[in-house]
Amino acid sequence: MTQDDTRRVLLSHGAGGKIMTELIESVFLANYGSQNVTGDDSAIVNIGLDKIAFTTDSFVVDPIFFPGGDIGRLAVCGAVNDLLTAAAKPLALSVSFIIEEGLDMKTLEAISESLREAANEAGVQIVTGDTKVVPRGSADKVFITTAGIGIVLKPDVSGSAAKQGDKVILTGSLGEHGAAVMLARANLLENESIKSDAAPLVDIVLGLIDAGCQVHAMRDPTRGGVASSLNEIARQSGVSIEIDETAIPVNPSVAAACEALGLDVMQVANEGKMIIIVSPDDADRALEIVQSRRYGKDAAIIGEVGPAPPSRVLVRTAFGTSRILDIPAGELLPRIC
Amino acid sequence: MTQDDTRRVLLSHGAGGKIMTELIESVFLANYGSQNVTGDDSAIVNIGLDKIAFTTDSFVVDPIFFPGGDIGRLAVCGAVNDLLTAAAKPLALSVSFIIEEGLDMKTLEAISESLREAANEAGVQIVTGDTKVVPRGSADKVFITTAGIGIVLKPDVSGSAAKQGDKVILTGSLGEHGAAVMLARANLLENESIKSDAAPLVDIVLGLIDAGCQVHAMRDPTRGGVASSLNEIARQSGVSIEIDETAIPVNPSVAAACEALGLDVMQVANEGKMIIIVSPDDADRALEIVQSRRYGKDAAIIGEVGPAPPSRVLVRTAFGTSRILDIPAGELLPRIC
Repeated sequence: MTQDDTRRVLLSHGAGGKIMTELIESVFLANYGSQNVTGDDSAIVNIGLDKIAFTTDSFVVDPIFFPGGDIGRLAVCGAVNDLLTAAAKPLALSVSFIIEEGLDMKTLEAISESLREAANEAGVQIVTGDTKVVPRGSADKVFITTAGIGIVLKPDVSGSAAKQGDKVILTGSLGEHGAAVMLARANLLENESIKSDAAPLVDIVLGLIDAGCQVHAMRDPTRGGVASSLNEIARQSGVSIEIDETAIPVNPSVAAACEALGLDVMQVANEGKMIIIVSPDDADRALEIVQSRRYGKDAAIIGEVGPAPPSRVLVRTAFGTSRILDIPAGELLPRIC
Repeated sequence: MTQDDTRRVLLSHGAGGKIMTELIESVFLANYGSQNVTGDDSAIVNIGLDKIAFTTDSFVVDPIFFPGGDIGRLAVCGAVNDLLTAAAKPLALSVSFIIEEGLDMKTLEAISESLREAANEAGVQIVTGDTKVVPRGSADKVFITTAGIGIVLKPDVSGSAAKQGDKVILTGSLGEHGAAVMLARANLLENESIKSDAAPLVDIVLGLIDAGCQVHAMRDPTRGGVASSLNEIARQSGVSIEIDETAIPVNPSVAAACEALGLDVMQVANEGKMIIIVSPDDADRALEIVQSRRYGKDAAIIGEVGPAPPSRVLVRTAFGTSRILDIPAGELLPRIC
């Protein structure tokens, strides 16, 4: 109850950028205390001798079906990939639906089937859930919130653990989810040449851990794209990160779509990609493991971790110049996930 | 994709009654498999040697502030009490917000403060969260989904574990949450004589477990009220339950409000009450423990568990007659929690 009373929540407060960070810090962290809430996508809870990773995300994507996926697949992949960022093996998910009265039952069934298929693919069980129905006009079709728990296999993997000299692996090409949803929304996707990348990255991450690779930090670049994720890691770890723009895999039709839509592909959401910060000694071996997996074929080493503050991300362009890659400020793509 | 394609989700599909049960069984259990999803409010996940209780609920209550609470307090109490039904000590919560663009920032701050206070009262930590903002008109003010994890202290407490001869303890008077929200919505609450009972029941349940009471089943009678909860236990356990109507504590102003609104207080939502099914040998001792706690002063033994099927709940009325207490069929109170 501070400051002026005309302040309101804006779309940009949910966009994964600077303004969202400010909201989280001023409203939520101020109340729950930064000792409990880290900047990571999963929290770690100690139970007995085990470390449990625990995460949640709400999904409000519009449209609810899009090339390459739907809100159900997204809700599973989001929770699973967040658990993986903590080097945890995903075990169980909860699924909570908020449904607008009047939704087609067959739509709900299709989403439910998609949830099950994605959970099967990820090897997790959906163990509990909730259903709320609100009157027509009080919600838009359906929102899904998943939470997930997993067992941490490699403690101390965290956005704050990147070290100077580490290599930055990106597991595949950028921007497909965001571009697919935006084009679907604008009815510009007749040929479906661009599909969402929504995928659970279990075998990539567990493969690296099983092989004993020295992974230090992971982040799945969803809202705000790799621009947000890299900046979060730089800030949390107190390092700089230097990215080689020419090394970043981008599907040409996604690049064209982003140009047409006026979007920087580095700021566009992905739902089946992981940024993996790994010790330089293990980088080549880790890249090989990632590339051997279904969702990692186009993986590349896209940069490396530089020295301590100013905690920024630099991009070396194809022209040999460098630019600062900033965290997007406001709303890029409302209801992208 | 079966049956006719004109079927739609109705408000009654989210009401905690028969139609919701049918939806859950036909759409969700059919997909996720009944081996994973039980009829209990919390799932149990085995991790190492520990049994972890895991639960989720979405909150869409309207209005978001009401006498005795708000959507934030509700979201914490709901998750905490669901964990307690599994005889689990609540440890950590996730909180996910879906916010309508334009919400007053001070409203969000007040909800966030309320969440923190309720979490402190319950002794749980809010460890992770998410924030989505949707355009104006795509949601109504704010929806909150909490998930919770806890450690199971007494395995095998379940809705399916009630036994013939067990006593039924109700921890306090019925219907206060539902009546308070309905009256607030109708602007009929000038004097606020009726307040929501939203409360975390940690010390009641942990008190019983610490004392070694033979608790067999617990259920918090939220949507659908004690009518739904008792029928769920009867069905899951394959027993009948007989309730003495005259033993049920009801605040007279709540009784009057329910009569005025045409509601059966047995079907009205509570957010700070627990039905506790306990071995007859421990019933008096358990009642004393419950009554010694802040939220259990008005607790009473309201009935007992009868013989095997027909899995129904009978109410002995003040007039000496008996009636079958059925699970409510459709929507009683939309957006009550």
